[in-house]
Parts: sequence; C-alpha cells; structure tokens
Amino acid sequence: MIPRYSRPQMTAIWDPQARFRIWFEIEAHATDALAALGVVPKQAAERIWEADKAAGDFDIARIDAIEAETKHDVIAFLTHVSERTGPEARFLHQGMTSSDVLDTCLAVQLKRAADILIDDLDQLLVVLKRRAEEHKLTPTIGRSHGIHAEPVTFGLKLAQAYAEFARNRTRLIAARDDVATCAISGAVGTFANIDPSVEAHVAEKLGLSVEPVSTQVIPRDRHAMFFATLGVIASSIERLATEVRHLQRTEVLEAEEYFSPGQKGSSAMPHKRNPVLTENLTGLARMVRGYVTPALENVALWHERDISHSSVERYIGPDATITLDFALARLTGVIDKLVVYPARMQKNLDRMGGLVHSQRVLLALTQAGVSREDSYRLVQRNAMKVWESDGELSLLDLLKADSEVTAALPVAEIEAKFDLDYHLKHVDTIFARVFG
Amino acid sequence: MIPRYSRPQMTAIWDPQARFRIWFEIEAHATDALAALGVVPKQAAERIWEADKAAGDFDIARIDAIEAETKHDVIAFLTHVSERTGPEARFLHQGMTSSDVLDTCLAVQLKRAADILIDDLDQLLVVLKRRAEEHKLTPTIGRSHGIHAEPVTFGLKLAQAYAEFARNRTRLIAARDDVATCAISGAVGTFANIDPSVEAHVAEKLGLSVEPVSTQVIPRDRHAMFFATLGVIASSIERLATEVRHLQRTEVLEAEEYFSPGQKGSSAMPHKRNPVLTENLTGLARMVRGYVTPALENVALWHERDISHSSVERYIGPDATITLDFALARLTGVIDKLVVYPARMQKNLDRMGGLVHSQRVLLALTQAGVSREDSYRLVQRNAMKVWESDGELSLLDLLKADSEVTAALPVAEIEAKFDLDYHLKHVDTIFARVFG
Amino acid sequence: MIPRYSRPQMTAIWDPQARFRIWFEIEAHATDALAALGVVPKQAAERIWEADKAAGDFDIARIDAIEAETKHDVIAFLTHVSERTGPEARFLHQGMTSSDVLDTCLAVQLKRAADILIDDLDQLLVVLKRRAEEHKLTPTIGRSHGIHAEPVTFGLKLAQAYAEFARNRTRLIAARDDVATCAISGAVGTFANIDPSVEAHVAEKLGLSVEPVSTQVIPRDRHAMFFATLGVIASSIERLATEVRHLQRTEVLEAEEYFSPGQKGSSAMPHKRNPVLTENLTGLARMVRGYVTPALENVALWHERDISHSSVERYIGPDATITLDFALARLTGVIDKLVVYPARMQKNLDRMGGLVHSQRVLLALTQAGVSREDSYRLVQRNAMKVWESDGELSLLDLLKADSEVTAALPVAEIEAKFDLDYHLKHVDTIFARVFG
Amino acid sequence: MIPRYSRPQMTAIWDPQARFRIWFEIEAHATDALAALGVVPKQAAERIWEADKAAGDFDIARIDAIEAETKHDVIAFLTHVSERTGPEARFLHQGMTSSDVLDTCLAVQLKRAADILIDDLDQLLVVLKRRAEEHKLTPTIGRSHGIHAEPVTFGLKLAQAYAEFARNRTRLIAARDDVATCAISGAVGTFANIDPSVEAHVAEKLGLSVEPVSTQVIPRDRHAMFFATLGVIASSIERLATEVRHLQRTEVLEAEEYFSPGQKGSSAMPHKRNPVLTENLTGLARMVRGYVTPALENVALWHERDISHSSVERYIGPDATITLDFALARLTGVIDKLVVYPARMQKNLDRMGGLVHSQRVLLALTQAGVSREDSYRLVQRNAMKVWESDGELSLLDLLKADSEVTAALPVAEIEAKFDLDYHLKHVDTIFARVFG
Repeated sequence: MIPRYSRPQMTAIWDPQARFRIWFEIEAHATDALAALGVVPKQAAERIWEADKAAGDFDIARIDAIEAETKHDVIAFLTHVSERTGPEARFLHQGMTSSDVLDTCLAVQLKRAADILIDDLDQLLVVLKRRAEEHKLTPTIGRSHGIHAEPVTFGLKLAQAYAEFARNRTRLIAARDDVATCAISGAVGTFANIDPSVEAHVAEKLGLSVEPVSTQVIPRDRHAMFFATLGVIASSIERLATEVRHLQRTEVLEAEEYFSPGQKGSSAMPHKRNPVLTENLTGLARMVRGYVTPALENVALWHERDISHSSVERYIGPDATITLDFALARLTGVIDKLVVYPARMQKNLDRMGGLVHSQRVLLALTQAGVSREDSYRLVQRNAMKVWESDGELSLLDLLKADSEVTAALPVAEIEAKFDLDYHLKHVDTIFARVFG
Repeated sequence: MIPRYSRPQMTAIWDPQARFRIWFEIEAHATDALAALGVVPKQAAERIWEADKAAGDFDIARIDAIEAETKHDVIAFLTHVSERTGPEARFLHQGMTSSDVLDTCLAVQLKRAADILIDDLDQLLVVLKRRAEEHKLTPTIGRSHGIHAEPVTFGLKLAQAYAEFARNRTRLIAARDDVATCAISGAVGTFANIDPSVEAHVAEKLGLSVEPVSTQVIPRDRHAMFFATLGVIASSIERLATEVRHLQRTEVLEAEEYFSPGQKGSSAMPHKRNPVLTENLTGLARMVRGYVTPALENVALWHERDISHSSVERYIGPDATITLDFALARLTGVIDKLVVYPARMQKNLDRMGGLVHSQRVLLALTQAGVSREDSYRLVQRNAMKVWESDGELSLLDLLKADSEVTAALPVAEIEAKFDLDYHLKHVDTIFARVFG
Repeated sequence: MIPRYSRPQMTAIWDPQARFRIWFEIEAHATDALAALGVVPKQAAERIWEADKAAGDFDIARIDAIEAETKHDVIAFLTHVSERTGPEARFLHQGMTSSDVLDTCLAVQLKRAADILIDDLDQLLVVLKRRAEEHKLTPTIGRSHGIHAEPVTFGLKLAQAYAEFARNRTRLIAARDDVATCAISGAVGTFANIDPSVEAHVAEKLGLSVEPVSTQVIPRDRHAMFFATLGVIASSIERLATEVRHLQRTEVLEAEEYFSPGQKGSSAMPHKRNPVLTENLTGLARMVRGYVTPALENVALWHERDISHSSVERYIGPDATITLDFALARLTGVIDKLVVYPARMQKNLDRMGGLVHSQRVLLALTQAGVSREDSYRLVQRNAMKVWESDGELSLLDLLKADSEVTAALPVAEIEAKFDLDYHLKHVDTIFARVFG
Repeated sequence: MIPRYSRPQMTAIWDPQARFRIWFEIEAHATDALAALGVVPKQAAERIWEADKAAGDFDIARIDAIEAETKHDVIAFLTHVSERTGPEARFLHQGMTSSDVLDTCLAVQLKRAADILIDDLDQLLVVLKRRAEEHKLTPTIGRSHGIHAEPVTFGLKLAQAYAEFARNRTRLIAARDDVATCAISGAVGTFANIDPSVEAHVAEKLGLSVEPVSTQVIPRDRHAMFFATLGVIASSIERLATEVRHLQRTEVLEAEEYFSPGQKGSSAMPHKRNPVLTENLTGLARMVRGYVTPALENVALWHERDISHSSVERYIGPDATITLDFALARLTGVIDKLVVYPARMQKNLDRMGGLVHSQRVLLALTQAGVSREDSYRLVQRNAMKVWESDGELSLLDLLKADSEVTAALPVAEIEAKFDLDYHLKHVDTIFARVFG
C-alpha cells in the first residue's frame, strides 16, 4: 500500500481494526447460531455481543503481543476477546477452524472492496457520459496506427470508453458475487463438529452466499477470477490513459489534463504541462495486472489446503483493490476536468489536405464502374502527392485536375465526397446503442 | 501449436482454410445485406455464393503468393475470390475495412473454440460426478499443509473439483458471450460507408451479437477477459493435477494414473509408474496462464486502433484454446481411468495412531467445562507422544491412561470420539449442494 | 511457432531431425567415453558412428510409431537406432537416463539459439551505429512525457538504443553460458552407473560446461535466467519500436518505416502508410515477455525432478527463440531502411516558438542573481503565452519585451540563450562513451 | 511493504529520510563539482554541507506540505533545503533535472538493497554448506515424479541448493552492477547545462558507474534485468521451500521445520506441526515473481522519457527487495534449524522392498548378454510384484527365485547389486565440484 496511491475508504477495509471487527462478527454470529441449536448457552452468545459493545475497539498491540508468542493469529485474537469478555468466551469458535474466520473475512473484505470499485465505475461512467454527450458532435480525426484515417467525433471516443467500462462493471459484479461466499465448515470442511446451519446463518448476516463445498478453505479459483477481473479493468484504464497521453502530445494537443494554477510541470522547463496523471495511471495499471499471475498461482493448493496463498493475499488483497480504487478515481478526475480543444481538433483534421476523404472517392469510383484495382491506383497516385506535400496540396484540387478521375466521376460528385457530416451521420445510432 | 498437445477438432478452427471460409461468409453475408439495401445488385450477391459453391476450397498457396506481393492479407484474399468469382466480386467488401473481416472472424473462431471447451468441461463434469458418487463414502485422510488432519472421503475431493469446474463452465459461458460480437462498421467504426443493418445481418447469420461501438476494431478488453478466464480454468486444472500427483507419491499411493500394459515408465527404473500425465497438465497450465498477460497488454491500443494485438493473437488464439482443450480432455481421461486404492487410503488413515480424532477430544473437554487452554494442553501432550512414536502408540490408549483427562471425561465418552462415521455425517449435505 | 514470424536458421534448431541428431551425438560420444573406460567394446562404439553415417537421416515416422506404443520418446529413439545399427546398439545409453539426453540436448539447442541471437544483436548494433553516426548531428526535439523539452539529435536516440542493445548482448552471453551445461549423471544424478569422465567427454565434444550437481535433470534456474533475459531483450525491442511508431505519427512524421512501391497500406484508405512493422514488433515483444513467467514457474520441480517443465519447454524453447530472432531481424531491417526526415525534425523543433530554450533563460536569470522562485515565475509567465498561442508567438520576442526580465539580463545575453548548438556540444562526449 | 514480511535494515533503505539523505548527497556532491568548475562559489558548496550537518534530519512533514502545493517532489525537497540552508541553496541543482536526482537515488537504493541481498545469500550459503556437510552421507531415497527412484544423500540435496544459490549470487552481482549507474546529464540528457565532470564526480562519490547515455532518465532495461534476477532467485527459494514441504508430509516426514515449544500449529488439531514457513516462502516467491512483468513493461518509455515507470517503482522497489530479503532470511533460518530424521529416511528407503536397486540389475543383465528388451522384461515382471505388495515382498528374493534371471546372472552377483554404498561412491566427486 503506497499512501500516495490510496484513498481512505478503501484503505479502511484492510485496516487491522476493521479485520478484527469482521472476525468478531463471524465468531459472534456463529455463536448465535450455535445457541439456537442448543450447543452453547443463549446467555453466553448474548454476553459476547454485550461485552464487545462495552469494550469498543480491539487492542491491536495486545493481539500482536499474543501472536508473537503463539505464532497464530486467530488464537491470539480469541485470547484477546476472551480477556475482555470473560468465561463465556470459551463458547466462541466451537467446532470452527481458523480458516472459517479468515476466509469468510476475506470474502467480506473483497465484497466491500468490490462495492467501492463498482461505485468508482459508476462515477466514471457518469463523467464519461457527460463528456461524451458534450462532445458528441465535436469532429476530430480518427487514427489507425497513429496515422490519420477518417473523421470521428470526440464524443465517440468517450462513448467507446463508456461502453468498455460498462462491460467492466458487469464483469466486476460477476466477480464480486463469485468471491463473496461464506465457509463455516470446520477442519477439512466436513462439518463434523459444526452444523451447516451455522454457516447459513453467518452467510445471511454478512450478505454472503454459502460455499457449497469448502475444504477448510474457500477454493481459490474464486479469488483468481476476482483479481483477473481487476487486471482487465486496469487494462481498460491504461487504454483511456494512453489516449489522453497521445492527445496531449505537443504535436497533437487536442486535449490536456487540467493544470492547476499553482502546479509546476518541470523543475527545468517551466513551459511544460505534462500528462503526468495518465502516465501515472499507465504505471498503476501495470501493477494491478502484475497481481493477476500470483492470484492464478494461488489456486493449486495442496490437498485440502496449504497456506501459501495467505502471504500473497496479504499483499494483493489491499494492493490491488486500493490501487485500482485510486486509479479509477484519478481517471474520473482526469476525464471530468479534461481540457478539450475543439479548434485544435479541427486544425488537425484539416492539415492532411483532405486525404481523409480518399476512401469515399475510392468507393465512388468503384460504384461508377471502375475496377477496384484501378480505383485504388487513381486515388493512391493523387493521395501520395498530397501526403508528400505535408498537407500543402489539396486532394480535392488534384483529383479535379486528374482527367482519368474526372472521366469516371463528374467534378460535382467528387466535391460531394469531401463532406464532413457524411462521416457523422451514424453518431446517433452509436450513441443510442451505448447510452440507450 | 504443439502437435502432441493438440486435438483435431480444435486445431481445425485455426486452419487457414477454415479462416478463409469464415472470411468469405462474412463478406458474402454483408453483400447480401447490401443487396437488400439496393447498394449492390442482388444477382451479384447471389453469384458470389454460387461461384464459391462451384469453386470449393480456397487456394491457399495462391492467396499466400498474392499476400507476399501486396503485404496485405485481406486484399490478397479478395483478389483470389475475385479470380474465381468474376466481375461480380467487385461488389464485395463495399464500405468495409479489413478489420471488419478479421475481428468478426476472430469472434467466430473464439466462440467456436469456447463451445468446444464448454463441451470439454461438460465431459469432465460427467466423469467427476461419476467418480465422486462411486467414492462418496470412501474414507480417506484430509490433509492441510500436507499433514494429516481429519477424515474426509475421496468423493468429497472430487465433489470439490466438480463444483470448481462447474464454476469455470459458468465463467466460460460469460467470457464466450463477451467475446462473440460482430463489427461491420467500416474505417474507424463510423458506418460512414456502410449501413448498420449490414452488421446486424452478418451478426445474426454468424450467431454473434452486435458490437455497440467499434473503432475499426472490436475492443480488446473482451479478448482479455476471454483469455483471463482460460487462465483461471488452467489453474483449476493444475489444482486437480497436483492432487493426483500427490496421491500417487510412493509414500501415499492412494491413487494412480492408469498405466497401460505396454507403457514404460522409465528407461532406467522399470518398477516406476510416474504421474506423467498430471505433471504434463501442470506444465500446460503454466502455458495457458502465460498467455493472460499478453492478452491484457493488448487492450491499450493507440487511438482508434493499432495492429500490435494481431501478432499476439496469432499465437495465443490457437495456442491457448488448443492447449486448454487438450488439457481438459487429458484431465478427463486421467479422472475417468484413475486407479483408486481404498485399502491404502484406510491404511494411511490408521497410521497416525488416532491423532486425527484429537480435535473431537479437544471439543469434548471444552464442553465438559475444561478451559480452552487447558483442553489444548491435555490433548497436545498426548498427541505429541503419538506423533513422535510414528504411529506406534495410540492416542486413545494414552488418553485413557491420562488421569487428568479421564477426570474430566469418562472413558466411554473418550472412546466415542474415535468414530469415523462422525466425520462423514454431512457428506450427503455437501453432495446435495454440489450435485443438486 | 508461427511460420510468418520464423526464420529458417533458428527454426532448424528445433526440427525433430536436428534434435535426434543431437541425441545421437550425446549417446555416441558417451559410448566413446565408456569404451575408453573399457566398459563397452571399442569396436561397438566405432560401429555406432559408422552405422549412423551409412544410414543418414533418422526415420521420424518410425520413431513416432514406436513412441505411440511405448509412450517414451528416448526409448523410441534408441529402438530406432538399434534397428539401423545392429546388436552393438545395446552398448548405447549404458548407465544413462533419458534426462541425460534430453537436458543436454536442450542445452545444445539453447546455446545454438543464443549464438544466432547474439549474431542478430551484432547485426542490429552495426545498423544502429551506422544510422547513429549518419544522424549524429541531425537536430530534433527531445520529448519528455510526449511534450517538447529541449533539443537532442536523432543520432543520440540511436546511440541510446545502441548502448541498450550492447548491454543486452552482454546479458545474453551470460545467459547462454549459464544454460550451456552438460549432465550425464544417470538416475537421480549420482553417477552410480556411469563414470563422471563420460560427462566430461560429452561436454567437451559439444562445447558445454559440466553441470556441477544435477539431480537427473539440469536445474531449471538456468533456463529461467535464460528466458528472463530474452524477456528483457524483447522489452528493449518494444522501446525502439515504440519510438518509431511515435515518430511516424501523422502529426510528428519525423521518420517512417520503408514503404515498398507495391505495398498497400490499407484496403480502404490508400494514402496511409502505417508503422505496421514496429506495431508488429510491439506484439512480438509481448509474447516473448509472456514466456518468462512459465520459465520461472518451471524452477520448483519436486524432489530430484518431475516432468512438468517439459511441456512448457516444448512451447517456449522454440517460440521464444524463434520469435526473438525474427523480431531482432525485423527491427534491424526497420532501422536499416528507416526513412528519416531531418527537415520535418527541424520544423517540429521550431514550432514551439522557442520554448525549448526556456531552461537556459531560467538558469541565466538565476546566475544573474534572481532567486530561483522569481526566475521561474518570470520565465513561466512568458512561456505560458507562447504555449497558448500554439507557437504563433516567440518566446525570445516576449522576453525582450518583459522589462523585469531585461532588468536582470541584457537583451544580447537573452538572445545568446536561443542557440541550438549549445545543446549539441556534448554529443561527441556521449558518442565517445557509447562507440568508444 | 507488509510489516510482517519486512526486516529493518532493508526497510530503512526505502525510508523517506534515507531517500532525502541520498538526494541531498547527490545535490551537494554535484554542487562541489560545479564549484570545482568555477560555476558556483566554493563557499556556497561548503555552506550547503555545513548547514545540513547543523540541521540534521529532514522535516518530512514540511516537504510533504510543499509537495501538496507544488505537486513536484524534488522542488518541494529543494525548497525545504533552501529554508534550512539560506541563500547559498540557490546554487543547488544548477543545470540538473529532477530525474538526475531521482534516478541516481534509485540506483543507490537498489545497489544497497542488492548488497543486503548478497549478504543474505552469503548467509544462506554458509548454512547450506554446513548442513550439506553434516548430511553428506545420510542416505535417503531420490525421487523422480514423486516416485522412489534410487538412493541419494540428504547432503546432495543441499549441495544442489548450494550450487543453485551460488549461481544466484553471481547473477545478482551482475544485476547490481548493471543497475548501479549515475546520471547527472540535465534535461533530455544532453549535458547542455551541466558538465559531464559533475556526473563523474557524483558517480565516484556514491560508488556508481557513469551512465554512458541517459535521456533524462536512466534506461529501464537495467531495472528490468534487476527485477528479473530477483524473480529467478525467488523461484529458487520456492524450489527449496517445496522440497521441505514435501519432506514434512505426514507420510514422508524425513525433515521438519523447527517447532518452538510455545508454538501452536492449529487451533483445532493440536497434534499438527505444519510446514508453515516454507508454505509462506512459496507465496512470497509468487509475489517477487509477480513484480518481474511490471518491470519489463517499464522499459518502453515514450521518446526521451515518460513517468509511467515511477509509480511501478514506488511499489516494486521496496516490495521486491524487502520481500526477497525477508524470504532469504527466513529460508536461512529454516535450513539452519531444520530437524532432519535420518532414521526415517532409512525407513523410507527400505520400504520399497529393494525396488530402488532394479536399475543395477537391469544393467547387469544387459552386460551379461541379455538384450535390453529382455532384461527390461525380466526386471519389470519381478518389480511389479514387489510394487503391488506395497513393499511386503523383496525384489532380491523374487529375482533369486526367477530361473530366467539366475540363468543369466549368478545369485551372488544379483546380491551384490543391492548395495547402498554403490550409489554413494561419487558423493565426494560432486561435493568437490560444488564446494571446491
């Protein structure tokens, strides 16, 4: 966890105090269920909640001290709870194993983290939609391979991003539901010492579904799917961040990250405004992606369980969710405040001497009966001259002066092909698909 | 593609002939839709299908020769089709761009691959279920950390695997539907030169959904999600393969891969029967996982598109699907024919001198009013003696001889705790959850 | 192995015929050494070489047929050799185990592959040096964050690449020497049935060093280091490819991949010349990097060995080396023929209205006694005006008109700061460091 | 950084105070060199050191506050230094750029981290050597595929690990030297505003070599190589940890992690002693490996530099080095205190009824003139009976009772093949290779 790439709400989920709180709730709810079964006294179950209410926060230093001796975190926690609860605490953890607590807790944490991330996505989607609609008809050049292709609108770029992050939202909901299961099944998962109704009760109280078959641990394919999904979302962040970085290049400069008045770009070159937020997002995306493989490697535990997954999760549980939360929020801020330069977009659109319309001329020639190969040759020989002039020559002028072209296509028809609106006529269609 | 790790049905999807067939269908269906719009003559559209029917297979050598000259695969293909179709071929590809063909084709291929993989999973699930029910009540020791814990059944191990692969099936269906979209939107995806109805027609004919917003290419987050899902499935394969490898260890030997009469295990040590299939699966899982990161890196294309994804997909499209198909089929074979040794399982269960029942005694002591800490100490001091005797001593005997224990718990109650069926009483519950 | 990304010399290393040839040499050299020890008859050892010479190529179909039955590749090979050699073949493989053959063969293959890759790097270095010297003093704008910074030369960019690939050459030599070891140590590596002198003989004949301690297999940390090194080289390829892709952007266009007369850039937009080679290299780099993690996962074999590494190596042995060989050769071609546009570089340099000289003015102000903060403020307020004019205003003009600036710095001194050669005065220094 | 997986000496390297200390030294040494050149006053350079000595620790809260405003870390630092130094501070950072400070600082940090890791490796090597010599002739079964193969010694296992970690030491030294370079070259690396002699001076003072060609940043292939090397070392850790995990399995139990008197293995099963340290190491290895790919992705910066690498390095710089340091120390502790059970090793060796000697019999038959195929058949038919008896039958007895075997090989010769020392006769040879 890097403080500068962290936000408090997500960080709080991974705080020791929050973790022990979840542990306590799992244990106390389980004891309630055991009391309902008559396995433990009802008063004991009640006393456990009351003592906790009275005691407030857990004494983390004390728990750490006990763990230093016992080298076992759950035993240390239970000992501490025992100290502040009294003799009734012996009814806690009956028939349970540490993993029941640890794995169910992790499920709660990942579910809460996913909820924040879904909320992050919602906020990003709101901003993307607003900016997309704002620039729905702002013409800009579409580029394939970094080379000018044909006109699009800036709104279309953002609509694409919207659709992509909407997909990510759907995927994340699936991943959250996949990982949000509760296991209270005891050693090696057989319920030998604990009735399945306890699991059902705890699951319901914590908003989880029941793990159909656990083996002391919740199977790690669920977590692998969860972190893999975060890796996909991170990659989408990289895509949009890369777009902004390109747009802010000195030679392109069609959009810029917002640059606050007091901000200094470079210690050496005061004129510089660098796309540092989106470059940062590019790096953060690498990190979140980097956590996918360890999560995949965690799946193949030995027999009913080993504990190799645990250290991995101590890193990637917080790091992946905190980093992605920060990245989504940062991206939302970037898009929200993105300074867009429609005039510069138009200028760039115009600078290629009309080459962006060559495809339409090519089609028109084909439809006028010229073979595909000949049409291609006719357009290409004029296009190349424009290209080599660095936009000084105009494709329209050249085509009108090419007798082989005009023999096939009247000048008026050629001119009609150089119409920007032609390219934008289906923007509504696409927006309707994306935004409904 | 490694021939020894390939099966023909999946390999056929990635065959050039199959690919060109899909290309042709995309182009011909699109031409039908254009004919319906009146953009091209109906007879031309019909002639294209007829000429193809008459011509049969594509001449791949001819296409390669043209591509060597033009350095453009779709132009090479269209030229070849033109050669065997005649002048009507000029109505093909009207308003389309190469990516419309390439990306929609890849969607068809990945969908077909997914269908085979889903079928593979179905076959694996059938076998897992059969073997699980066969060994539903075959007792075996559950192990955490590789150390004997408490009894489970061999059927429970397989039920866990069943549940895991059933989850993978659900995930793969989602990933398939995510990736199976059709884009026929022309250069930079604006439909400037092609009506959206063409896309809808082609999508319907090929069993795809319509890509809401493409930018010449179908966005690669879809593919990333697809390959990430394959990586999760591969990790589950590794888990089950690792289980078999452990069970076949000389010292454990609770199950073995089927060893055919003619098979030789080792050139040097003729007595050896090695779990080579599951070791092989472990390696194959590493490969399928290794394709996840390149797929994630493919997402951030520049602007409307670049072509960096293409070479990656030429590798991982075939390699990931062919390898996973082979691995699932091999795993199904391993489980199907797995030689299970219940007697050895029982022998292993017994070898720890009853230590596996220590948890029950611990609980009984607690419930009899002994503090958790004291109960732990009492059980542990006897358990340690058994442990150090390497199973020569019996925990039951020692406990009955420990006066501090018998003071808290009558001998008959101690004896009752050493009952195997106690651990298996909820096997039905778990099976009902998993198999319905 | 993707044919279009393969070159014959590297592919040949991984050909079955070549592999069997290496196997034979290992076996035959080992038999020579055994003959020298008196373990097998000298005539038998001689006969083995002679029979092979007479028989020529191995019958791969026959070997495959035997393997299909025995499910063991080395036994299949030895049976085939036996068939074409006669009874003396029984003296082959005495005291050896399959891994002695397989692992030593892989070492030979990776060493040969490394030699080709080193040769590839040498050719790339030659081209980089030639182009670097050609453009040693071709001014171009240096960019940080994609934003114009200060002048560099195009030769400096290539000198950086030269230095980077020279480092990669050094790393690859180390990785080659690391992986090029011979193990002929028999089952579990104890030399129980074979004298260490056999290993020494085979190692010397094949140009390998002796593996100090093998455990039937050569330890896989060596291979992991090898493939990790290929991953680093691939990343350097991506860096230089990305540079070319940026330079070829329509708005930048300072350099272009060579575009042959017959080549077609796009089926739809005939004016387009796309940096498809370097985009392709970007994708290939992702693949070579993707093989690093499976190689790392191969290290932790169980006990003395398991065979999980084998399937991984069947993929990545050929795929990583063939792909990297192709990529290095393609990159060499790209740089060799790169079309460089010095005029456009100058035009881009000029388009920022002199902002690139702001750092020098800042320094001059500081040295003239203005505080760092004030100097920054003075430069920044003028620089911002230039920036916002999109290069229409000139920083020099504005500074000369700013009385607070001229109060600190005489006009002549300000003008002296706008000198391009100032930035290039240490190009010789850097070239001397890089090229010696 | 996870506190429980961190050690103070390594953590200290990444402490803000330590980082600012390095920054200061870079700046102050650079100012010395500038003073030597006459660019800044000698007294100013001296005053900077003196003021620092007087001021002591940096005020991190103050620096953070300034950065919150300026959003630029190096400017914030310089402002703070200026506050505590006085007007002479304006001579700091002359002609430098932030990256000169940041990248050179990172080089110092990684070099220091590497030095600690090399020291860790040295300590591990000492322990491995001691335990290897202790168990040089402790017989144990060698296992391939988890199946008993032929005898080795426990010392040989550790000698293999020694050789592997000795290789890792060599690799790490190379990686350290690769990454330990100094760049003080100013904006875009041209030395336009700073003489190369400054860089040489700073490099010498900090024990770094000079970066031949930087582009504002030190090229990231160096860092990629560094982190890839850490990934290889982590994989070797996983290998040895996996060995211990296997040896501690209940059924094998040839060695155990040291289990301190107060330690509790499981909250539920008090008899359990789990290999939790080596399982933990397995997970930590996954993490260190997971940082390799982000480091590789960091190489391809845009043009002269972008800052996407920076966030990645904020994570993996500390996390990879701290985790690996902890893991090496933990592994050293595990091996140092490993409880080895030679009696159990012997018991396991014996349990296969002499099958481990089958290879020798096979060879003897071959040398006695029986064909390889017949020899194999003879040994295998007896071996299979032993195998199926689960060690109840003895291979020696069966062979002596097999008339086809005794016809080829006298009984005394058969018996001579069942000699354990035969397998250990080259242990000295191997130890001499490894330990010199």
